[in-house]
Amino acid sequence: MYYQTLGQMKKMLRQMDAWLEAATAFAQTKSFDPNAFLQFRLAPDQFAFGRQVQIACDTAKVATARLTGKDAPVHADSEQTLGELRDRIASVLKYLDGFTAKDFEGAAQRVVTQPRWEGKVMSGADYFMEHALPNFFFHTTHAYAILRHTGVNLGKRDYLGPLSLRAP
Amino acid sequence: MYYQTLGQMKKMLRQMDAWLEAATAFAQTKSFDPNAFLQFRLAPDQFAFGRQVQIACDTAKVATARLTGKDAPVHADSEQTLGELRDRIASVLKYLDGFTAKDFEGAAQRVVTQPRWEGKVMSGADYFMEHALPNFFFHTTHAYAILRHTGVNLGKRDYLGPLSLRAP
Repeated sequence: MYYQTLGQMKKMLRQMDAWLEAATAFAQTKSFDPNAFLQFRLAPDQFAFGRQVQIACDTAKVATARLTGKDAPVHADSEQTLGELRDRIASVLKYLDGFTAKDFEGAAQRVVTQPRWEGKVMSGADYFMEHALPNFFFHTTHAYAILRHTGVNLGKRDYLGPLSLRAP
Repeated sequence: MYYQTLGQMKKMLRQMDAWLEAATAFAQTKSFDPNAFLQFRLAPDQFAFGRQVQIACDTAKVATARLTGKDAPVHADSEQTLGELRDRIASVLKYLDGFTAKDFEGAAQRVVTQPRWEGKVMSGADYFMEHALPNFFFHTTHAYAILRHTGVNLGKRDYLGPLSLRAP
């Protein structure tokens, strides 16, 4: 289950990369600096686009590290351009490509914690379902919604990506 | 896996109900008709809030029906008020409460189709991961984002709901 969902997270990150490509093209047709996107947000007290992309990347990266007991690469959150954000996505995808289903054996029983939880812990199973999965979709979807709100020409197919349809 | 994720979907629908309650209270403090929310949207060619809530409900309902081979209750999409949307959520939660883990046996191997796919099909496993799961979070998160964009006082805790934290 965790490895299958990792596959879907990787797919969503590839789709997110395509949204950034579309945002870059949109800025060119409108003759504005595409890197302005990094500061766009839906509410004054929500994270801006650049931070949404960073956290989406981190959520997939950190969840995979925690559920497999491996170390995650550190990213400095210093991206200033859409190109640098796309490099971030590529870096995380390369890291995630290094995992196999076998790495996730025992993931549900692992003990997961983070500083914000003030000494408390969650099981790997609860952490994945209640925290990692909804947070991943929260930030990817907010990134998408900020671009749509700004006028970038995206649709549900760009969000979902290609489906494994076959003849009956 | 499907039954565990159904539990998380039910949790998200309960959180969504709380967002509607917060939206109602917000409208009262600002002295506007809370049902105006149903028409708010983030982009001219995106679905408005009311439709986002309806589709989030339908995605959980239809995915559960398709993966278990059961019939889903029909909802008329006639809601005109936040109260009616909350009734819709309650109705779907009641339907979903009727399923057990055993109902999902063989779900991955089921053949799933819908009119939009023009005769093509997906396996239950692919349909769930590539279509139902991302669509469910797409529409719940857009409902949340529309409320945040409008000024409703919500935060990440309202999105995630209570976490299963415990002492180490």
